[in-house]
Amino acid sequence: MLTDLGLDALWEYRSAHVRPDDFDSFWDSTLAEARSFDLDVEAVPVATPLQTLDVHDVSFAGFGGDRVHAWLRTPRGASGLPAVVQYHGYGGNRGSAVENLTWASAGFAHLQVQVRDQRGGTGFLTRGIADPSTYFYRRVFADAVRAVDAVRALGSTDVAVIGNSQGGGIALAVAGLVPDLAAVHTQAPFLCDIRRALNVCGRPPFTELTAYIAENRRSDVFRTLSYFDGVGFAARATAPAWFSVGLMDDIVPPSTVFGAYHAYAGPREMAVWEHSAHEAGGSDDLDIALDAFRSRLLEKP
Amino acid sequence: MLTDLGLDALWEYRSAHVRPDDFDSFWDSTLAEARSFDLDVEAVPVATPLQTLDVHDVSFAGFGGDRVHAWLRTPRGASGLPAVVQYHGYGGNRGSAVENLTWASAGFAHLQVQVRDQRGGTGFLTRGIADPSTYFYRRVFADAVRAVDAVRALGSTDVAVIGNSQGGGIALAVAGLVPDLAAVHTQAPFLCDIRRALNVCGRPPFTELTAYIAENRRSDVFRTLSYFDGVGFAARATAPAWFSVGLMDDIVPPSTVFGAYHAYAGPREMAVWEHSAHEAGGSDDLDIALDAFRSRLLEKP
Amino acid sequence: MLTDLGLDALWEYRSAHVRPDDFDSFWDSTLAEARSFDLDVEAVPVATPLQTLDVHDVSFAGFGGDRVHAWLRTPRGASGLPAVVQYHGYGGNRGSAVENLTWASAGFAHLQVQVRDQRGGTGFLTRGIADPSTYFYRRVFADAVRAVDAVRALGSTDVAVIGNSQGGGIALAVAGLVPDLAAVHTQAPFLCDIRRALNVCGRPPFTELTAYIAENRRSDVFRTLSYFDGVGFAARATAPAWFSVGLMDDIVPPSTVFGAYHAYAGPREMAVWEHSAHEAGGSDDLDIALDAFRSRLLEKP
Amino acid sequence: MLTDLGLDALWEYRSAHVRPDDFDSFWDSTLAEARSFDLDVEAVPVATPLQTLDVHDVSFAGFGGDRVHAWLRTPRGASGLPAVVQYHGYGGNRGSAVENLTWASAGFAHLQVQVRDQRGGTGFLTRGIADPSTYFYRRVFADAVRAVDAVRALGSTDVAVIGNSQGGGIALAVAGLVPDLAAVHTQAPFLCDIRRALNVCGRPPFTELTAYIAENRRSDVFRTLSYFDGVGFAARATAPAWFSVGLMDDIVPPSTVFGAYHAYAGPREMAVWEHSAHEAGGSDDLDIALDAFRSRLLEKP
Amino acid sequence: MLTDLGLDALWEYRSAHVRPDDFDSFWDSTLAEARSFDLDVEAVPVATPLQTLDVHDVSFAGFGGDRVHAWLRTPRGASGLPAVVQYHGYGGNRGSAVENLTWASAGFAHLQVQVRDQRGGTGFLTRGIADPSTYFYRRVFADAVRAVDAVRALGSTDVAVIGNSQGGGIALAVAGLVPDLAAVHTQAPFLCDIRRALNVCGRPPFTELTAYIAENRRSDVFRTLSYFDGVGFAARATAPAWFSVGLMDDIVPPSTVFGAYHAYAGPREMAVWEHSAHEAGGSDDLDIALDAFRSRLLEKP
Amino acid sequence: MLTDLGLDALWEYRSAHVRPDDFDSFWDSTLAEARSFDLDVEAVPVATPLQTLDVHDVSFAGFGGDRVHAWLRTPRGASGLPAVVQYHGYGGNRGSAVENLTWASAGFAHLQVQVRDQRGGTGFLTRGIADPSTYFYRRVFADAVRAVDAVRALGSTDVAVIGNSQGGGIALAVAGLVPDLAAVHTQAPFLCDIRRALNVCGRPPFTELTAYIAENRRSDVFRTLSYFDGVGFAARATAPAWFSVGLMDDIVPPSTVFGAYHAYAGPREMAVWEHSAHEAGGSDDLDIALDAFRSRLLEKP
Repeated sequence: MLTDLGLDALWEYRSAHVRPDDFDSFWDSTLAEARSFDLDVEAVPVATPLQTLDVHDVSFAGFGGDRVHAWLRTPRGASGLPAVVQYHGYGGNRGSAVENLTWASAGFAHLQVQVRDQRGGTGFLTRGIADPSTYFYRRVFADAVRAVDAVRALGSTDVAVIGNSQGGGIALAVAGLVPDLAAVHTQAPFLCDIRRALNVCGRPPFTELTAYIAENRRSDVFRTLSYFDGVGFAARATAPAWFSVGLMDDIVPPSTVFGAYHAYAGPREMAVWEHSAHEAGGSDDLDIALDAFRSRLLEKP
Repeated sequence: MLTDLGLDALWEYRSAHVRPDDFDSFWDSTLAEARSFDLDVEAVPVATPLQTLDVHDVSFAGFGGDRVHAWLRTPRGASGLPAVVQYHGYGGNRGSAVENLTWASAGFAHLQVQVRDQRGGTGFLTRGIADPSTYFYRRVFADAVRAVDAVRALGSTDVAVIGNSQGGGIALAVAGLVPDLAAVHTQAPFLCDIRRALNVCGRPPFTELTAYIAENRRSDVFRTLSYFDGVGFAARATAPAWFSVGLMDDIVPPSTVFGAYHAYAGPREMAVWEHSAHEAGGSDDLDIALDAFRSRLLEKP
Repeated sequence: MLTDLGLDALWEYRSAHVRPDDFDSFWDSTLAEARSFDLDVEAVPVATPLQTLDVHDVSFAGFGGDRVHAWLRTPRGASGLPAVVQYHGYGGNRGSAVENLTWASAGFAHLQVQVRDQRGGTGFLTRGIADPSTYFYRRVFADAVRAVDAVRALGSTDVAVIGNSQGGGIALAVAGLVPDLAAVHTQAPFLCDIRRALNVCGRPPFTELTAYIAENRRSDVFRTLSYFDGVGFAARATAPAWFSVGLMDDIVPPSTVFGAYHAYAGPREMAVWEHSAHEAGGSDDLDIALDAFRSRLLEKP
Repeated sequence: MLTDLGLDALWEYRSAHVRPDDFDSFWDSTLAEARSFDLDVEAVPVATPLQTLDVHDVSFAGFGGDRVHAWLRTPRGASGLPAVVQYHGYGGNRGSAVENLTWASAGFAHLQVQVRDQRGGTGFLTRGIADPSTYFYRRVFADAVRAVDAVRALGSTDVAVIGNSQGGGIALAVAGLVPDLAAVHTQAPFLCDIRRALNVCGRPPFTELTAYIAENRRSDVFRTLSYFDGVGFAARATAPAWFSVGLMDDIVPPSTVFGAYHAYAGPREMAVWEHSAHEAGGSDDLDIALDAFRSRLLEKP
Repeated sequence: MLTDLGLDALWEYRSAHVRPDDFDSFWDSTLAEARSFDLDVEAVPVATPLQTLDVHDVSFAGFGGDRVHAWLRTPRGASGLPAVVQYHGYGGNRGSAVENLTWASAGFAHLQVQVRDQRGGTGFLTRGIADPSTYFYRRVFADAVRAVDAVRALGSTDVAVIGNSQGGGIALAVAGLVPDLAAVHTQAPFLCDIRRALNVCGRPPFTELTAYIAENRRSDVFRTLSYFDGVGFAARATAPAWFSVGLMDDIVPPSTVFGAYHAYAGPREMAVWEHSAHEAGGSDDLDIALDAFRSRLLEKP
Repeated sequence: MLTDLGLDALWEYRSAHVRPDDFDSFWDSTLAEARSFDLDVEAVPVATPLQTLDVHDVSFAGFGGDRVHAWLRTPRGASGLPAVVQYHGYGGNRGSAVENLTWASAGFAHLQVQVRDQRGGTGFLTRGIADPSTYFYRRVFADAVRAVDAVRALGSTDVAVIGNSQGGGIALAVAGLVPDLAAVHTQAPFLCDIRRALNVCGRPPFTELTAYIAENRRSDVFRTLSYFDGVGFAARATAPAWFSVGLMDDIVPPSTVFGAYHAYAGPREMAVWEHSAHEAGGSDDLDIALDAFRSRLLEKP
């Protein structure tokens, strides 16, 4: 069943989210602070049974100089390839070194970033929420930008970002923070149009926020959240973006995805999966991304 | 709680379902194909402890010539009575020979049909769904028409059809396929206004379709379903019909029942049970049907 | 899945229930008090469309002289038939006059009793629980005995009692309170081996008791319940009894049914349905009862 | 997630509830009947370890002369204080003598009333529902009025009433039935705008009513309920009232609280907790009530 | 939480499953019948964006000559490699051509078989269950054996089989039916020790069987199932096998996995994941399989 | 229903938990490190409407010197009273200043500690779990010990500790870490016998640990947890302790409470509530604690 507005209404819907006045300066200073640490990229080869691909455990200095890790997968012996930087979902992790091989097998440098502190677990949505400067996602988004810096430091000039759910939200944030991305694919992005999301969604992880506000009766957390809402980042983005949404998604309300989509300032496409839940288009979305990125990153004149 | 539109909106609601252009020819050829097999009705007496009724295990050639079974219950020693043909719900069966004795005790020949392959079980909604010609319900609806043929072959001239849920959907289909029925009673009919149903309903069995479309991301199954939607059959029906609906039904959305009702081309009544779920009016619906059918079938001049 | 002990353990299991010393005198005085009111049986013909059966709305003076109602169904024009008295389940009611016709169609006088105050609803398990003399089921069980008195007053000499769930518990109580019943059929009887039941069962209605004890932390309610436990009644019964149990019943734990069965003092049979839930053997149990009762009540020499 | 209308719509919403013509005379005669019994207030000191407060077990003649109990808590040795009469929620009870000490510690006489027959349990919503004169809440609301009489008999002139959920519904009823209350605080009041509530709410206890109507298909229970709906009492009230509502309350739909609020005839305030469920503002509501009552009852000139 | 026996008891547990006397002849004739059809292997290249791997859509004649499909993934340009044949889980499918690339990237020919009729959907466990000869899994297991035939026809001499859940059950069946497999990896295999499973497991898909037996009260379905139980196949197997089990698996009870493990006639290893559910060891199991298969299939002298 | 062993088995059960060899030195150094910061107690009066009690917002230096807050409630104007230090449950907080007044009203200094970082929220059970030195509860337990130090610094010589659930676990830890407590009351203590708990319990918050282990397949987290298990602290305790347990508790398994109880080295009592869930004896437990603490702390010779 539909979990939110019908399709016609979604095309009409516009988010009421407003960026705070100092949104840009907040992120400028955040990135400046993050970049004040030497990036210090390390790439340690990982011994795997794979014969067609190389895998490295890449690490670099994220926000506050904390080490952030990522798998880098590349076709055996290749270097300098266009890169796809991927962010994972909430409560997930970067997975096994020898799985998720599609992007590298398709000729990309594939950097799969481990979100700090997340290997399973819950409670991240309220960590440090008392102030934007202490909020968990300030660190995560800065890490994500540094991951793009890192893959470039490793030799990739053209960089696309992708992710689903939390990963999609991170990808949108990076799209708003890094000016020269080649492309973006965001599937059922989390953390967009958050005030609306809490009104529509009754399932974790958004309910971590709902429960926190109810427990503390402090609706001023929306001030903090206003610096991290995907709608705000979308309005700063310029890279071509492919969105994907499932209209029966009960984890990320479709209207919040459309809220970000309609605000997106760059070229944009939306794949609507009317009967899908949070998985959206699944492997069909992957096909769309492969096709789009190949023509833009691998086959460019 | 209400599971769909409020009552005022339901009276205004009209289904967007459109029959395919070749709907009539599809069903003409389907019935012709079914009737190409000799009906070959058998009626085997069943030994029961009942003293007031006779029970026969009737069988006949359904679609593809497959044997279809039904209980025939009649007042002890009677023959040539007006008949009530009943179809059962999804995941059910024709039940015990010695239960469900109301219609026969009230003076009708009561034919209770066993839906092919169903004795419990799930998964029927997607069986053969790749094409209308292979869809499971093509066989079921053709069997249901042949059940009317069979009860007539056994001596009943006047025939009414009834059912609840899936059985109500089958009764509607028969109402659209058999031109000279005496009456129809359909309680919370399933398989009407299917596209709407999938948007509104989050419970089995409709979710078998939702899950299939999501899994395969193939919305072209709606083409197949368009030949089997109760709204389409309703528009071809002429017999007087009694509908029944529970406004708190979370298995068959009320709007889909109203969708079929408003499309119904014959005389029609709707019993609305505002606080009922899928059971709708329960035994009160039975009283309505008994009253209506008695005056039309038993007491006609 | 199994909800209680495995089958071998069930055959070994014996209930720890102990009747209070004054159990017999409690019930003797209860029945004497109930019978101090004139039975005052009324049988009002009900107009129905049924041609093979007569239906009467029977009423009589139950506990405290309160009117208790029941449907009496008999083959058209018959009288003086052996009777089957049926009690319904918790939260149910005697149903429609024109349904549940099997017993009458099979040649019995069928008296279907309406449990006082129950037409749906909850909360009966704790009503008046502070003392045995005020407990709701003191009235219900006394009413049930008076129903046997009533059907005899209407001309039936041989009387069997049946019921499922709460109805099965009432039938067991009557079997322990009425010395000359012809037969008993009890399907998944509720209210047996109650202390065990609360330890094993996590679903309503038994949890009404669990919640009450937890809320009040008054385990002395077991003193009240000890006068109403089916295990206690079973030990006083003499009529031949057919039990039925589903090993996957999560509403009435199988061990509590076996607890009553093993305590049953008369001839007894147990039908075990290994994969059934609370419905136990369903219509197969009905077939067993029809077969057993026919040979004992209708065909006796 | 929101469970009902959005905030803007709630401010516009008006209940369709209509009081029956004889509503006033029904309650006039009910209270007259209740007051025909001598109030017969008893206050038995309770031995507690508390050093700063006195606790009495107060009892008095409620509806029909039945004894109703309440805890009276007062600052050690004080008398003649303004009183706060509190009613508890559905399935609850007056609790322990030594808990819930805030009101007495703040200088009020605090009378916490035990709702008759409720110490846990369910099923009260349908007890006696066949007629207004036999309905369970006729007794409860009359008891509640007599509790105000009792606390006055014990020396408190100024009396405020409070409650949450069922207790809030009782407080509203008292506000409509007692003309000279000093103040009212009602948090997520139950039993308001009942017809709407059944359409919106899918959880107990409102579903006790839904299930009863569905089981019996008797929508005439709304006639009985029309004498007990908080919207009706609100329109008769004159004391200043503080309402509180959680917009994510799935037990008492917010629109039903607004329905009572908009109908309230006295001065009124509404505290809206956008992300709270049935707990509404919790201890923040208590702060509001303490502040309001202190200035009106303790500090009045 | 544990869903079945504790670890010590699991090591002691032995399944009570007994193969029917004609088990061997049943499968001999089934395979003979399947092999009476020409295998007719087709391998159609699939256009993908992958640069390091080739993908073919392989099809062949399965049971009854029906076409069965599978993806064949191989390192770009390679042939004659040792093969890993994989079977998917219940309600799943072979997935996208461009995902699941680990085995091929590690130097194997990877044949991922599509189970007939399954692309999502339910109800397969009871299809044709009236007799072993008509049971759905007779066709599936025969297809699975023919998949090994097919990959050999395409040039792979050494063949291992793998699968999780339903796929693990199919792999076990193949291990019992194909005498010269190189290795087996089976993760949380479904369809083992089925009688035990139904007693312990309360979740789909095993409950499809429970519900069917309860609905029909026909425990003779166990005769049909006895030809398809993984415990029976295990006792015929000779290839070295790696099992994996999660002790908190509520979909495939751990005891049923141990039941098959203890019966396994070839060399065997068991990886126990004490806190895992149905995912068992996840990618750690993949690492185990990669390591085991590499040394046996790729690096053999 | 029972959620764990039956009562007889619970009395026999002994936990298999073993403290690590350096448990004592780990906690000695932890407390030494915590106490290396000046306690720096502040007590700021809180303006409340309470007339019988004083409330202060106390703060002090917890682990790492971080400020920890607590409400201190005392009878108006009193000082130097025996103290009761209370810790709250998981996902809770210290509540409102003007609620929970029983202990102070009974003549105690009542210090209600706010667990750091918890005001609602989840995920605390896995925070820093990679090593005992970084684990969240190292800080919490050290804070809890410092709370005892603080209340003594404020003038209370005799100190008892209490808590339910997480609070009960903290109270047990303090009982093992502070040698001269006057008494302990622990209701359904969380975080005892953790390895057993994960095997028995399927609900949050214990499942935060289960999910983490499953996600990471790292059972070495048990090494970290071994420093924080209530069974280990119990074996070091000397103060008289009152335990309480509900046998139908599905959040804290009863066997884990008995595991700690049987290991408890000081005088001990156990209140068993056979039909209670996680609330155990509720206000009856409070009565037990009040009675016990009064005679030991207030009325000592």
